[in-house]
Amino acid sequence: MNTPFHIPEGNFRGHDRQNVWKLAPDPELTEVGPGTACGEYMRRFWMPVAMTDQIGDLPYRIRILGEDLVLFREKKEGRLGLTHLHCVHRNMSLEFGIVEEGGIRCSYHGWKYGLDGTVLETPCEPPASQVKKKTCLGAYPVIEYKGLAFAYLGPADTTPPFPVMDTFDEEGDDMLPSLIKSPCNWLQVMENAWDPFHVVYLHTLAVRSQFIDAFAEMPMIEFHEGRYGDFYTNVRRVGDIVWLRVHDHMMPSFTQNGAHFPVPDRQRYFGRCGLSRWVVPIDDTNTMVVTWRHFRDGDDPRGMTDKSKVGYGTTDFYGQGPDRSYEQRQRDPGDYDAWVSQGPKNIHARENLSFTDRGVAKVRRMLRNNIRSLAAGNPVEHPAAASSGILPTYAGDTMLRIPIQPGRDDAAVLKEISFKVADIFRASDDRSGAARKSFIQDELKKYEAGWA
Amino acid sequence: MNTPFHIPEGNFRGHDRQNVWKLAPDPELTEVGPGTACGEYMRRFWMPVAMTDQIGDLPYRIRILGEDLVLFREKKEGRLGLTHLHCVHRNMSLEFGIVEEGGIRCSYHGWKYGLDGTVLETPCEPPASQVKKKTCLGAYPVIEYKGLAFAYLGPADTTPPFPVMDTFDEEGDDMLPSLIKSPCNWLQVMENAWDPFHVVYLHTLAVRSQFIDAFAEMPMIEFHEGRYGDFYTNVRRVGDIVWLRVHDHMMPSFTQNGAHFPVPDRQRYFGRCGLSRWVVPIDDTNTMVVTWRHFRDGDDPRGMTDKSKVGYGTTDFYGQGPDRSYEQRQRDPGDYDAWVSQGPKNIHARENLSFTDRGVAKVRRMLRNNIRSLAAGNPVEHPAAASSGILPTYAGDTMLRIPIQPGRDDAAVLKEISFKVADIFRASDDRSGAARKSFIQDELKKYEAGWA
Amino acid sequence: MNTPFHIPEGNFRGHDRQNVWKLAPDPELTEVGPGTACGEYMRRFWMPVAMTDQIGDLPYRIRILGEDLVLFREKKEGRLGLTHLHCVHRNMSLEFGIVEEGGIRCSYHGWKYGLDGTVLETPCEPPASQVKKKTCLGAYPVIEYKGLAFAYLGPADTTPPFPVMDTFDEEGDDMLPSLIKSPCNWLQVMENAWDPFHVVYLHTLAVRSQFIDAFAEMPMIEFHEGRYGDFYTNVRRVGDIVWLRVHDHMMPSFTQNGAHFPVPDRQRYFGRCGLSRWVVPIDDTNTMVVTWRHFRDGDDPRGMTDKSKVGYGTTDFYGQGPDRSYEQRQRDPGDYDAWVSQGPKNIHARENLSFTDRGVAKVRRMLRNNIRSLAAGNPVEHPAAASSGILPTYAGDTMLRIPIQPGRDDAAVLKEISFKVADIFRASDDRSGAARKSFIQDELKKYEAGWA
Repeated sequence: MNTPFHIPEGNFRGHDRQNVWKLAPDPELTEVGPGTACGEYMRRFWMPVAMTDQIGDLPYRIRILGEDLVLFREKKEGRLGLTHLHCVHRNMSLEFGIVEEGGIRCSYHGWKYGLDGTVLETPCEPPASQVKKKTCLGAYPVIEYKGLAFAYLGPADTTPPFPVMDTFDEEGDDMLPSLIKSPCNWLQVMENAWDPFHVVYLHTLAVRSQFIDAFAEMPMIEFHEGRYGDFYTNVRRVGDIVWLRVHDHMMPSFTQNGAHFPVPDRQRYFGRCGLSRWVVPIDDTNTMVVTWRHFRDGDDPRGMTDKSKVGYGTTDFYGQGPDRSYEQRQRDPGDYDAWVSQGPKNIHARENLSFTDRGVAKVRRMLRNNIRSLAAGNPVEHPAAASSGILPTYAGDTMLRIPIQPGRDDAAVLKEISFKVADIFRASDDRSGAARKSFIQDELKKYEAGWA
Repeated sequence: MNTPFHIPEGNFRGHDRQNVWKLAPDPELTEVGPGTACGEYMRRFWMPVAMTDQIGDLPYRIRILGEDLVLFREKKEGRLGLTHLHCVHRNMSLEFGIVEEGGIRCSYHGWKYGLDGTVLETPCEPPASQVKKKTCLGAYPVIEYKGLAFAYLGPADTTPPFPVMDTFDEEGDDMLPSLIKSPCNWLQVMENAWDPFHVVYLHTLAVRSQFIDAFAEMPMIEFHEGRYGDFYTNVRRVGDIVWLRVHDHMMPSFTQNGAHFPVPDRQRYFGRCGLSRWVVPIDDTNTMVVTWRHFRDGDDPRGMTDKSKVGYGTTDFYGQGPDRSYEQRQRDPGDYDAWVSQGPKNIHARENLSFTDRGVAKVRRMLRNNIRSLAAGNPVEHPAAASSGILPTYAGDTMLRIPIQPGRDDAAVLKEISFKVADIFRASDDRSGAARKSFIQDELKKYEAGWA
Repeated sequence: MNTPFHIPEGNFRGHDRQNVWKLAPDPELTEVGPGTACGEYMRRFWMPVAMTDQIGDLPYRIRILGEDLVLFREKKEGRLGLTHLHCVHRNMSLEFGIVEEGGIRCSYHGWKYGLDGTVLETPCEPPASQVKKKTCLGAYPVIEYKGLAFAYLGPADTTPPFPVMDTFDEEGDDMLPSLIKSPCNWLQVMENAWDPFHVVYLHTLAVRSQFIDAFAEMPMIEFHEGRYGDFYTNVRRVGDIVWLRVHDHMMPSFTQNGAHFPVPDRQRYFGRCGLSRWVVPIDDTNTMVVTWRHFRDGDDPRGMTDKSKVGYGTTDFYGQGPDRSYEQRQRDPGDYDAWVSQGPKNIHARENLSFTDRGVAKVRRMLRNNIRSLAAGNPVEHPAAASSGILPTYAGDTMLRIPIQPGRDDAAVLKEISFKVADIFRASDDRSGAARKSFIQDELKKYEAGWA
């Protein structure tokens, strides 16, 4: 018989590898609910939990770290309250409660709670009733700042200072909040920011330049320790320009990256970050990315940003949410498609981490160490506790005119520049504001001049 | 640095109270499936399972106490049949069966079942086949009465008489059935009727008068035992009028309340209930409220009722179903929002029961005792078994003109009146119909006159 | 009191039979995921996994036997590849990958895989990286044939030959593929084809003739063993015509039935099947029916077929999918309604198998034996391995003019004819194509003539 079909040849190992279907996620790094080790660790930090423009005159139900909560703006001074969802009398949800001056009232029998969950009134109880002294509603402190509501869900006696970075209050920076949800575990969303190589592929070579063509060049990556967190440098040579792109990371999930649409065609000294970003677990398999998007003169020479797109569920750069058809997501996948399609919880045991994954491996190691340290009874370190004020950060783009040096291996040159620039940045830690900026810029120019 | 945000102060105990997220529902009172203790107890009673106007010429699939069933009207005498959903031959669902004279036939291989589940025909089997004698389909008896189908899902040998209350067949009462589903456990829906204080808050003070302004007054509540069930009196003084509102309860889930829109501005002697109500579990986390809404001359002086709204999925008073937007439910929450938002199964261990919850505590205690009594092998008591006919009930509004008594504490007066009126009602138990009504009215008038 | 309602009488056994709610499906025959006994057995066969007209230029995500996979057509020679869904680097889904020449590339970091899952490129890794030699992607061989993609998901070293039946490449047969999904376990879909009696009831007597009136007659069924599979004969007498309808079955889930709209009013010798059909598990509770529908001159004398309806999610005969309203499904249930309404997994322990279910019982027994045989370490038998080429099958309609024989019991006559025709069919096994067809037709005519 003439075979009317092609018989495939090859070393097919699908059945040999069926154990992949049995492998499970790592609970130590991915479970964030009440009482879990990672959840306890994350509860030691202030985290953004909502955009304040979503909080109107009604209670606003949210879910954070597996806890169902209600956020509201009390009517006397406009302060935000964040409490457990269910009234402690009969468990009716306070999303149906009445927001009042100084607190919230359950609509079932009228129990009223203060911002800290103290039972203020039990109007249907007899005057002599002591019930309001015997219980309280779980509540968490909230700080409202520049369009975001930050909460601290940990033990009251370890409440850290609220950390304010230098990038939160810059002159000339129009800072806009955004919040976008993803149906997957927080860790895979966070790791994306520790992975500088996906920029080359996913954002540039895979289909099209989602940001700028210059990202197609493979960067040299160096990891550095700062006083208050970690940062890494991406170095690329673009003709005579040595382009250093710096990313910040602070545990557990804060990151800052460089500009979104940089153009490495001229000198730039200590340009700053395009995004301040927190990855906040809703629960084990839902996550929100809460950001401030920064807009400064000079950050976007080609005019590719769009402030009008930044807000609840949306931002002005490609691929951050589900706002595209399945076909479009297939034809031009973005970050959202990468992290969501890793699964509800990425299974690390199935991965093959390699050279490009040093950042991912590093953050998992740091996270695991910190989780175990807390579980062993050690205090959690907070940058804001170690600092006397605003925290210096490093993220942004610096472009130095340093041509190829005849007779020297350029990779060695770029590496040397990476470490030197990191040193200059760190040397500025005790300065702040304009003085710090001038210091860094002067040092960078001096250093650049030394290569001329 | 000038802190540009407010640092919250207070005694925040959200983290201290994280154990609330671990607490679980009480299985003894909330699990109703086959073989559960509460489910067995509830299977000892006739319960309404459908509105008959929903049963057309096709099989009607329903779910009761966790059992998937099919209800149909056979075509010879129009009798209702209620059987297990799946044909016992090959398990095809009888919702796709053919309703015939005297029974239902599976469309797969034609097995036909009588109303009691007996296999009547197996047309594809050989004539000598004995299979139809070896098995049967699970079936339950059904009584059709005034627009409702009642079923008994317990053991055949303990089938109780069908209980008929005096309120089921009153002269001049236009009685309309309604059935509304709620996605939560039955107990929290039922308890709402044992809680006279939520009327003050949820229905009146919280947002607006959903019924009448007079409910804003805190009532004095007294619980009484009747011959066939429990009842309680809500007493309020409205000027010279002492307004007694009586609610009936019979285990496991039957209740009757007073008129929906009473006006306590004149005398009324033994006005009757606005609603006869059963709470029927669909399964552990779904429930239906099945009612007859009563419409009588004089019950609604302000014309606030609307017969056209009473039916499948709807009724003529506010907040009983999901027929409102989420925003409207937040702005003006009703009973449905209270019980559904307690969660799929309310977690009693999180509650703080207090003075207002005496009814809730009482019904849980009675229910638990009855469940344990049955589990211990005792027979279940049925009012209809103890009675020779129609069962007397008490629910409704009575309004007596009894002014404040100079020199006497009015609370004591109201309490005395509550008990006396309860005594008058109970004294009528051996009478029925018009004779009973005259007796009660005469006694109430005599008693009222004694205060003049 | 005059009882205003009917009190039902009968032997109601719903409560007695509450154990039916506790019975569970048979895991040995219904669980098909990786590592299960039945799943391993089914992984020893080529199965159709998609219609090729659904595979465009993008990766096509599918799920087979509980495994998430991606099917794609590489761009050099147009060959089909089938791999595990998740990239083995960081687990991004390859449904968002880039289909290229000779393979597929993950869009996250650019790892490229060949059709057999070999890692071909890791572009972000340093040149010296060995990671691509250390791992591979699970992949399965695919054969594309007449509009269907067939895959083999078992161990490479036991890959059987691709079985080609005589019905796959007939002269004058316009063969169209179809694929329809059902939300239930595969076994109940497959068993429907082993049950010749549901044709009488479901398809004919229950509501209306969904196919032809002649199916209303109860057939005589005989099971026969063929060289490569099983077949059964349905015999019915229609006047002078003895109508033999033959169905093929090959393990695990291949079947062929007779014509869909036969008219038994004249002689027909070895008419062939209307459908070649595979039941393919998506997972334990989802299944697809993949078919070739055959269209030949003479198969449809009444013109009831419609090629335009055969395709993805649809076919030209009634009741095969969810493409009808719930009311229509109730008023005129089809095969889909039968097997889906048995539940996500039919519970055999609730059934009462009887005379009509000999086929169902037989296929379960064969399946269980084969599953256990493989689990015990025995090789799986494959018809295609035992044959030197195209496999002979028997399904179709034969109509012989053999009047009732005076003095003989007609049932005995029909039974004799069934066995003789089966013998004639089997005697043709070593012939093929036109020669085989002539042989069978000549033998049938000779045999028929012997009854004149």
